[in-house]
Amino acid sequence: MRGLRLFERASRSFHDYPLLSKFIVVCAVSGGGLLAYADANSSNGVHALAPPEEVSKKKKVVVLGTGWAGTSFLKKLNNPSYDVQVISPRNYFAFTPLLPSVTCGTVEARSIVEPVRNIVRKKNVDISFWEAECFKIDAENKKVYCRCNQNTNMNGKEEFVVDYDYLVIAMGARPNTFNTPGVMEYCNFLKEVEDAQKIRRTVIDNFEKASLPNLSDEERKRILHFVVVGGGPTGVEFAAELHDFVNEDLVKLYPAAKDFVKITLLEAADHILNMFDKRITGFAEEKFKRDGIDVKLGSMVVKVSDKEISTKVRGNGETTSIPYGMVVWSTGIGTRPVIRDFMKQIGQTNRRALATDEWLRVEGCNNVYALGDCATINQRKVMEDISAIFKKADKDNSGTLTVKEFQEVIDDICERYPQVELYLKNKKMRNIVDMLKEAKGDVAKESIELNINEFKTALSEVDSQMKNLPATAQVASQQGTYLANCFNRMEEAEKNPEGPLRFRGEGRHRFRPFRYKHLGQFAPLGGEQTAAQLPGDWVSIGHSSQWLWYSVYASKQVSWRTRALVVSDWTRRFIFGRDSSGI
Amino acid sequence: MRGLRLFERASRSFHDYPLLSKFIVVCAVSGGGLLAYADANSSNGVHALAPPEEVSKKKKVVVLGTGWAGTSFLKKLNNPSYDVQVISPRNYFAFTPLLPSVTCGTVEARSIVEPVRNIVRKKNVDISFWEAECFKIDAENKKVYCRCNQNTNMNGKEEFVVDYDYLVIAMGARPNTFNTPGVMEYCNFLKEVEDAQKIRRTVIDNFEKASLPNLSDEERKRILHFVVVGGGPTGVEFAAELHDFVNEDLVKLYPAAKDFVKITLLEAADHILNMFDKRITGFAEEKFKRDGIDVKLGSMVVKVSDKEISTKVRGNGETTSIPYGMVVWSTGIGTRPVIRDFMKQIGQTNRRALATDEWLRVEGCNNVYALGDCATINQRKVMEDISAIFKKADKDNSGTLTVKEFQEVIDDICERYPQVELYLKNKKMRNIVDMLKEAKGDVAKESIELNINEFKTALSEVDSQMKNLPATAQVASQQGTYLANCFNRMEEAEKNPEGPLRFRGEGRHRFRPFRYKHLGQFAPLGGEQTAAQLPGDWVSIGHSSQWLWYSVYASKQVSWRTRALVVSDWTRRFIFGRDSSGI
Repeated sequence: MRGLRLFERASRSFHDYPLLSKFIVVCAVSGGGLLAYADANSSNGVHALAPPEEVSKKKKVVVLGTGWAGTSFLKKLNNPSYDVQVISPRNYFAFTPLLPSVTCGTVEARSIVEPVRNIVRKKNVDISFWEAECFKIDAENKKVYCRCNQNTNMNGKEEFVVDYDYLVIAMGARPNTFNTPGVMEYCNFLKEVEDAQKIRRTVIDNFEKASLPNLSDEERKRILHFVVVGGGPTGVEFAAELHDFVNEDLVKLYPAAKDFVKITLLEAADHILNMFDKRITGFAEEKFKRDGIDVKLGSMVVKVSDKEISTKVRGNGETTSIPYGMVVWSTGIGTRPVIRDFMKQIGQTNRRALATDEWLRVEGCNNVYALGDCATINQRKVMEDISAIFKKADKDNSGTLTVKEFQEVIDDICERYPQVELYLKNKKMRNIVDMLKEAKGDVAKESIELNINEFKTALSEVDSQMKNLPATAQVASQQGTYLANCFNRMEEAEKNPEGPLRFRGEGRHRFRPFRYKHLGQFAPLGGEQTAAQLPGDWVSIGHSSQWLWYSVYASKQVSWRTRALVVSDWTRRFIFGRDSSGI
Repeated sequence: MRGLRLFERASRSFHDYPLLSKFIVVCAVSGGGLLAYADANSSNGVHALAPPEEVSKKKKVVVLGTGWAGTSFLKKLNNPSYDVQVISPRNYFAFTPLLPSVTCGTVEARSIVEPVRNIVRKKNVDISFWEAECFKIDAENKKVYCRCNQNTNMNGKEEFVVDYDYLVIAMGARPNTFNTPGVMEYCNFLKEVEDAQKIRRTVIDNFEKASLPNLSDEERKRILHFVVVGGGPTGVEFAAELHDFVNEDLVKLYPAAKDFVKITLLEAADHILNMFDKRITGFAEEKFKRDGIDVKLGSMVVKVSDKEISTKVRGNGETTSIPYGMVVWSTGIGTRPVIRDFMKQIGQTNRRALATDEWLRVEGCNNVYALGDCATINQRKVMEDISAIFKKADKDNSGTLTVKEFQEVIDDICERYPQVELYLKNKKMRNIVDMLKEAKGDVAKESIELNINEFKTALSEVDSQMKNLPATAQVASQQGTYLANCFNRMEEAEKNPEGPLRFRGEGRHRFRPFRYKHLGQFAPLGGEQTAAQLPGDWVSIGHSSQWLWYSVYASKQVSWRTRALVVSDWTRRFIFGRDSSGI
């Protein structure tokens, strides 16, 4: 009895003093030999629900989606003057970079999810959550139409409409099949937690199926042939995880299956991991070769049937069909239907994602923001604004620009048009004055004067440096944080604008535009080896990067609960291996 | 790098020396404050696969099912002279007493399952496993017909036939709906791991649904009305778990739902937990009343529709309909179709389960054994054999039985007919001689002599003590162990029979008949309180029994992996509460 009371009291104090539990988990984590540093936020823990009459005055913010973008927005939002409504078909946030680990049971599905209600519970902002799918956005009337996504019997009450003052679209993307026939019917994807769970079951199922008594060897080979389409980080990591699962765990339980199992990775381009440094690509291809993973480069999938996948070899156009037991399709992202409809509505057609400006505002409508995989930033070209820039900079209206005049607007230009900085960096120029000098010829510094045409020539190459941001968790998360900070400081910024000079209008922009800061990228390659590409082209491959990977992924977890669970899953895997129960 | 190597080496030594890992887990477990004692078996760890020519001489044992009975049979079997084939639609063993905990996330589904292949991997017996469903038993030709239970595309090869020399049927039972209309369509059951996972999702779904904006309060009430049908240990434990889940975890995340949620427990009899002591029943009913769980006694369910459950009150026959959000049906067990077909085949009709003798041999066929929930032991009545017993005991063929003559066969009678011992115990008689004395009237000890009719009168009441064994994990597990021990000693017992005298034949029975040893039963009632009824009518209710429950359930786990996982799940629950993500 006393023992229980003590334990109960202890556990209650965990609830009451989250810091204590954090401390203890840190001890446990470091005890496990893992460096888990935390970027936890202090929350003041107050339920500051405003009284009803005040609620009506609050601006209504509707957030669609609880992925990386939506969740980081909600985590950072701390301005109590908003009434926030979150709508998502999933009531949790999933740490998607660990999905490939879930496919083989290295990490459990439940260890990488955290309920949204838990994330927003202790905030001082009034946030309500509805588990529903938004199926229509009406930007004209500032409404979104939603539907409960469950098997309901609610007599038509499962649909509802929500008004907004600000709309934040963070619905992510769906897998891109490139309209390849059979993909939707026969392939597994790897975007949602359910996908990963289904793949895990299918792998075990196939091993059980292949063990049944009256099959031919050919049939066993087919059932145990796992095909991964797409040599991006997800596909590569899945192939590596599966290889480890098979060779570290399954061969012990299915000794006869050893001779039949095969993993094939199909990639349409010339190399796998082609967004990474060549050293990483080379290492990965070599490692997969040693591991017996068959990497087929230049292979386009043209059709998938129930037992065969047909590929066309790029170059000679030869088509071959390979029997398979399971296909995982991970070849990039496509547009969700509701986003496509919305794009039509606002005149954005023939695009993969919603176009926004650098402040993440959707082009063509007001008070609508889009971030994460469902959006791309349409960067403003310098050449579009070149006359306005010249005019603004030419304060004395002389028709020519002196270096002094120019220097006064340099910072604003660099902030407004990030491609300028990139261009300078690539050309190894110290600053923008060098660029002007080059345009004019080598003259003494202070005496350069450019007319509008010379100015145009000087900046003509700059826009070539514009790049779309990759569709990664990192980008989405930074965008969410950025937007929340904007919302937090909306009133102040209205009074004291923080952004760069408006070249085509008066005054300054309210906020600085969004700037992505690349923190590096991992590509786990199996066998406790990971390739890491960090900023400054720093490349690291091997066991040490694997430990860096463990540390970073543990530290980036959204809650202390998931952090403890993920670390304990890793430990469990080290001790007991991965589970192969077919549940 | 070095750190990794060290860790890798350490983890490898866990694999190589399982005892080391056991020791470490024990440390971890006791560090967590839990007394987890182990009944682990030492296995010699040798893969003694016999060479092919010897295999053919081995007796083929086919085991159907990997539940409690089948798994404990496989665990204890250590006679390498058998070639064992295990067939089950699930490739894992599930620790079913923890299923109610899985419904609310107190314990994770994966923590209570262990792959069968892992259980049998290191045995010295040749055991193969096939994940398939047996759909026909042909006892005449000693064959079982099986079918792969997955969504296959194997061109008809998914069916196969297996020959046997001995068949062990341990397929368990299915839920019993008593043919109540609507139960199959609308109710949740709680027999399989998938059932528990589905209930967990449904509970969360219903909380999310009830939170949607445009519902009436009445509708919210309906959605959050959870009905449990059946007041047995499973139903009661589920109701208690759900109550804890709602009040400890969900109300924090769904504060508005608090006023709408309701749990109702329907029981057709006069009391819940009616197989337990009255003190426990009373305590449970009182506790549920305090907790606000509505216990409706004497309520028979007559119909279930998509939104309403109709009950008839026993006595007045009044029918009422209650709107519900989820129903969990847990009212006892029914017969699987394949067992019913088999029963027809061997002439056992109008029974719920396969009838076996006390040696678990199915009546009406040879070399077929049945155990666990799919079987009941048809105890031999003393009165059926009374003449044979008399004849055997009357060694001098005098037509009367002296006490001396009788004493020589007393032990054999007690062993062969367990009801005799029970009868004596209930009548508070010292031994069987007292019974004879009573029949004869009080005469001096040594001079009693009974003729056949007096003997019959003396034993006439004995058979009233026969009881069927309950359909519990404990019975199934003990039966599995018993049968494995018989199989292990088959050859020796053939030469030197160990069992009681054959009263209707010559010699002795090969084995002692199966005797169930009741070790007690738990009924967790929520709020860290458990009722325990232990042998000798020892009753314990409250927090201390909860700790006993933790200890026993931790110790009874089938592997060190599941033991560690279950204990870490409990710890996780104490620290972080239960997860409410809808996956």
